[in-house]
Amino acid sequence: MSRTVLSLPGDGIGPEVMAQVRRVLDRIGGFQIEEGLVGGASYDAHGTPLTDDTMAAALKADAVLLGAVGGPKWDTLPFEVKPERGLLRLRKDMELFANLRPALVFDALAQASTLKTDLVRGLDLMIVRELTGGVYFGEPRGIEDIGGGERRGVNTQVYTTSEIVRVARVAFDLARKRDSRVCSVEKANVMESGLLWREEVQKLRDAEYTDVALSHMYADNCAMQLVRAPKQFDVIVTDNLFGDLLSDCAAMLTGSLGMLPSASLGAADANGRRKALYEPVHGSAPDIAGQDKANPMACILSASMMLRYSFDMAAEADLVDRACQDVLNAGIRTGDIVEPGMTPVGTAAMGDAVLAAM
Amino acid sequence: MSRTVLSLPGDGIGPEVMAQVRRVLDRIGGFQIEEGLVGGASYDAHGTPLTDDTMAAALKADAVLLGAVGGPKWDTLPFEVKPERGLLRLRKDMELFANLRPALVFDALAQASTLKTDLVRGLDLMIVRELTGGVYFGEPRGIEDIGGGERRGVNTQVYTTSEIVRVARVAFDLARKRDSRVCSVEKANVMESGLLWREEVQKLRDAEYTDVALSHMYADNCAMQLVRAPKQFDVIVTDNLFGDLLSDCAAMLTGSLGMLPSASLGAADANGRRKALYEPVHGSAPDIAGQDKANPMACILSASMMLRYSFDMAAEADLVDRACQDVLNAGIRTGDIVEPGMTPVGTAAMGDAVLAAM
Ligand SMILES: CC(C)[C@H](C(=O)O)[C@@H](O)C(=O)O
Ligand SMILES: CC(C)[C@H](C(=O)O)[C@@H](O)C(=O)O
Repeated sequence: MSRTVLSLPGDGIGPEVMAQVRRVLDRIGGFQIEEGLVGGASYDAHGTPLTDDTMAAALKADAVLLGAVGGPKWDTLPFEVKPERGLLRLRKDMELFANLRPALVFDALAQASTLKTDLVRGLDLMIVRELTGGVYFGEPRGIEDIGGGERRGVNTQVYTTSEIVRVARVAFDLARKRDSRVCSVEKANVMESGLLWREEVQKLRDAEYTDVALSHMYADNCAMQLVRAPKQFDVIVTDNLFGDLLSDCAAMLTGSLGMLPSASLGAADANGRRKALYEPVHGSAPDIAGQDKANPMACILSASMMLRYSFDMAAEADLVDRACQDVLNAGIRTGDIVEPGMTPVGTAAMGDAVLAAM
Repeated sequence: MSRTVLSLPGDGIGPEVMAQVRRVLDRIGGFQIEEGLVGGASYDAHGTPLTDDTMAAALKADAVLLGAVGGPKWDTLPFEVKPERGLLRLRKDMELFANLRPALVFDALAQASTLKTDLVRGLDLMIVRELTGGVYFGEPRGIEDIGGGERRGVNTQVYTTSEIVRVARVAFDLARKRDSRVCSVEKANVMESGLLWREEVQKLRDAEYTDVALSHMYADNCAMQLVRAPKQFDVIVTDNLFGDLLSDCAAMLTGSLGMLPSASLGAADANGRRKALYEPVHGSAPDIAGQDKANPMACILSASMMLRYSFDMAAEADLVDRACQDVLNAGIRTGDIVEPGMTPVGTAAMGDAVLAAM
């Protein structure tokens, strides 16, 4: 089985954290790693946040690893060449419709949450976010002049049955390996597209997943419940836009954004292989970029998800996960998660520690 | 100045909490209070969540007070007669484009938050949510069959310059009476309608509110920042859908949802008077309805906002606010905010206590 990985470090702290991932993958061995540009870095070099060549390389690779995109430097660029468009094109052209965002509280870090510790200790929730549909890609869209000095901005929220069913299936399958509970989130009381979402998810459950408990929740209530009692959830499945907000909210609940990986998956091919992109949940953090301050753990754990989901290398993934765990337990911490009495380290030293623990 | 108030208790705990509000208004005196039905209660009586007569009464009244709408009993009704449609029609036909949702932590209740106490003590943030535009009302919308057993659900996110400007103006004006800081929230990196939002808010600030500090934030980041450090905000202005999620998230941060009022305001007429609807942030809480358990404070404080904004009765509003404060400080608490050592009371007894404190 080939193991071609396209590494796209991107912007801000992306390159620094990706450098540590490379060391981890080199240690495991057996990967053909290509490197490419995405986001602002690609715009600076080529005038576009993703070149057709890099897109082609992503489609050919067995997995893509991404650092982060964006930063104030490119904030005033026209919409169509903003750094984010590079990431969005990757998602869309690779058809990565299922974005898995675990919100996990590491025992050693339960204190780091802004929530009271007992509300988050042991938290292990999985958000499955639809990633190639909804308002992110719906047409018509754009800004038009409507006369009298007025402009009009439009985006379209649109979902079809099959778009809903395929991502719901990922959520139900995941739930079966966990606590067999799925909570589907929309605004069916206000949006017809949300009503369709609710009906299709329920139909799929009744037809094929009667062993999984399905509940429905409005997105505003979900935002509340995440803050009130996050441990009530097992798997949450929701659309692209709600998933964007809710997964960030859930990630922040853990208090350790610098620890959270994510996976974006496409449909399985004849060999059961899925197109896949792995990236940390944190952003490009331009304020600390290039200072050896960033926490590389989220990106390392994203690589571990890649080992597990794309390459069936559970033993190696366990090795990486355990090494990260051991490093945390040993009190070795980057600035984002350091506490009094711990050993503060930089990005590279954190990589050293993980390698040593492996 | 006439003081006609339309009271719409609605569903679930709505009637119970509204009954306490009536006592408070009767004590102050001078109001002509009419009563009407909205939501499931109206559907049960008339087959529609809001009759044309009630709509007309709302348009004629000087202010509308609403309890809450919705409940599982009506969850399976067709979209167009769901209880929520009654509330949405009120907002739309009264043109209540600015929804003011304060997230305020009462000193006596800082412990009640799920967040660590020092992160929320003294929290006083105001979310100004656009309420008559965006994906809530945009056309086209609906669900259609597209053949092959597939359906397609569509909603439209749409904003015009003037819709954005009028609600931003409310936010800037409010900020001037507070800490003069506005944070405008959208997804300008993904949605053109969000980009228009950002540009128009910035233009208005540069033209008319240079004394107010304006920042911009993506909605996903805002969901994080609310959980991470809510006290960083003064006034947040955002669209209908983001405002729905973010204001609920912010409300939950306070730990005392049963305490939070809201006001929805329209444009000022020639006499400077605005159409207005006041309602508690909490919902209809069907699980505790009819059991004398609900906290009437949020609805009473909504009435206090009415006194202040619609009737220029600042002294009376202060009286009500102080009475609520005193009751809290005296340790008199409904079930949602009771703590060990306090005096637990029901809905009516809480009303008694507020009246006594007045
Ligand atoms: C960078 C941006 C386009 C992206 C999104 O909105 O999806 C990010 O916020 C995310 O959640 O991955
Ligand atoms: C009841 C519902 C239609 C409403 C909304 O989505 O606006 C509610 O959640 C709110 O925030 O007032």
